[in-house]
Amino acid sequence: MTLQHFMNEAISPWMREDGPDSDIVLSSRIRLARNFADRKFPIIADNNDLEEIRDFFRNEYENASFRDYDNFEFFPIKDLSAVEKRVLVEKHLISPLLAKHGEFAATMISHNEQVSVMINEEDHIRIQLYFPGLQLSNALTKAFEFDDWLEEKINYAFDETKGFLTSCPTNVGTGMRASVMMHLPALALTKQINRMMPAINQFGLVVRGIYGEGSEAIGNLFQISNQITLGKTEEDIIEDLQSVVHQLIEHERKARTRLMEQSGTKLEDRIYRSLGVLKYSRIIESKEAAICLSNVRLGIDLDIIKNISRNILNELMVLTQPGFLQHYAKKTLTANERDVLRATLIRERLQLEEK
Amino acid sequence: MTLQHFMNEAISPWMREDGPDSDIVLSSRIRLARNFADRKFPIIADNNDLEEIRDFFRNEYENASFRDYDNFEFFPIKDLSAVEKRVLVEKHLISPLLAKHGEFAATMISHNEQVSVMINEEDHIRIQLYFPGLQLSNALTKAFEFDDWLEEKINYAFDETKGFLTSCPTNVGTGMRASVMMHLPALALTKQINRMMPAINQFGLVVRGIYGEGSEAIGNLFQISNQITLGKTEEDIIEDLQSVVHQLIEHERKARTRLMEQSGTKLEDRIYRSLGVLKYSRIIESKEAAICLSNVRLGIDLDIIKNISRNILNELMVLTQPGFLQHYAKKTLTANERDVLRATLIRERLQLEEK
Repeated sequence: MTLQHFMNEAISPWMREDGPDSDIVLSSRIRLARNFADRKFPIIADNNDLEEIRDFFRNEYENASFRDYDNFEFFPIKDLSAVEKRVLVEKHLISPLLAKHGEFAATMISHNEQVSVMINEEDHIRIQLYFPGLQLSNALTKAFEFDDWLEEKINYAFDETKGFLTSCPTNVGTGMRASVMMHLPALALTKQINRMMPAINQFGLVVRGIYGEGSEAIGNLFQISNQITLGKTEEDIIEDLQSVVHQLIEHERKARTRLMEQSGTKLEDRIYRSLGVLKYSRIIESKEAAICLSNVRLGIDLDIIKNISRNILNELMVLTQPGFLQHYAKKTLTANERDVLRATLIRERLQLEEK
Repeated sequence: MTLQHFMNEAISPWMREDGPDSDIVLSSRIRLARNFADRKFPIIADNNDLEEIRDFFRNEYENASFRDYDNFEFFPIKDLSAVEKRVLVEKHLISPLLAKHGEFAATMISHNEQVSVMINEEDHIRIQLYFPGLQLSNALTKAFEFDDWLEEKINYAFDETKGFLTSCPTNVGTGMRASVMMHLPALALTKQINRMMPAINQFGLVVRGIYGEGSEAIGNLFQISNQITLGKTEEDIIEDLQSVVHQLIEHERKARTRLMEQSGTKLEDRIYRSLGVLKYSRIIESKEAAICLSNVRLGIDLDIIKNISRNILNELMVLTQPGFLQHYAKKTLTANERDVLRATLIRERLQLEEK
């Protein structure tokens, strides 16, 4: 088992590539909810069903490959330690909900970490595909291909009028949740983002923090996703989402330009002070680290900071989460100990950049 | 005229030497107030008298030398620009009061900047001698020698019972103000200094900020000096001052040790974050700069920060004052412009340390 592989790197291989508009859009994700037609859905299923579904995935797909997604690793959740589960959540490879599920939940993850399938979460199957930058259409095409590949062996629960059937009615229809992770420091700094929220919601879209539902927008990272899954095709949903994302990108770029013009030195000061904090602090809470990382990333995007790679934000945001810190320390850490280790890891990571 | 010489360096040559206890005591100063016996004191003098006194100093002492204090330069205050006066005040070579005096005020300063004589300030003559570290007795001996040298040519206003006569009754008697500049970051951090103030005052001593009367203790620098000049010999005054200073040194050292033991990482964090701010900020107000400089200096004294010279505190505290900043910029600066230039100078100065 190569769990170590997923544990050791804070950012997944696909994140190292640049995508369209990746100065602002960190990643695009398609998630498809699917269920077996001939089995009770997980919320009411008996253990037998769940066990059979889990074993089906192990038997059919362990070490299998499909196109770019090669060598799927299979992990029953119950075999994972608390820290291992936490790390997979922090890398967005599994959901917090799956991590909490007991006996029969499992996940399979492609070697390049671009695809993960959650088994027996809220639905029997939750497929996730990630792409760098803004590439929702491409992501959808790839997701459909992958979905078709699974469908060769699985009879999905599908209704001619309603579409795909899911445990929760909010997913019925396309079963699709498309989302993009956006870095919007200038809109956050100027508080414009608050005014934009209602408009975004009116488009049937939701804005969340980096760790999904109910999480705060730490580090000025915002996840924008579709709320509606019914009555619209996947293509239409993605088109609507994409059009809002394009507008947000444009607003963010304008806000950055305006900030530079109107208070360039103040912005530089904020950016460099953040770099100073990351380079020099000996104790740092995750919230402050996230703010500083966001500022430094903005500095890189604005070409104010050179010689630091763009990925530092994505990487350190994950690396400095509690799970990862404890994985590195190989033990449970108190909040204080985490704050010290977080500062150490950030300093060491930034020193690597200088070489 | 070599005014440039005094302007170009933020710290005086004597400051570069280490003195006793110079981890805590930055400098010792003796100031003697003297007046001509046969002239009205400055507060009521007519211009003729003041002019004659000023010219007497120019004629007798310009370019003169006495022991270590060689090549006295003579400057009529009216010939100095606003920035030049300000820089001399910031270097503690003249008082703010002298800088404000008009027509007949003057100063003479030895090349090594260890001695300055203010002419026609509140008294006809104010002699100042500076020494690095804690060396009040030595400073007093040297001050007496210098005083005797002046007395060879001047008939001082002196009363057998009262002692030296001065414009303000608070200086009558010895005419002496002995003071030490102490860096007390640990006592300030733990707020112990506040509790010590009343005790210090009871000894007839006064605690002031770095720029004397009415100034705040910025950068955790405290000037301790005698209040009483009458009814005690100079030696007794200095002994009392010295004994209190010794106690403060001891308390400060204990407080530093305790801070390191009880919250070492927190202290390190504070020290290094301050270094980060100094190295990275693009805009910095003088108060924040002073706090950060104090923390960095503490870090140097505690051997937490290496490869940065101790003098950085003294030097940058002066270098980043408004007068010096404008001297460097060669023009009047707004507060904002000063904050930007201050950050730049600090960064450049710290970069020099790294070479």
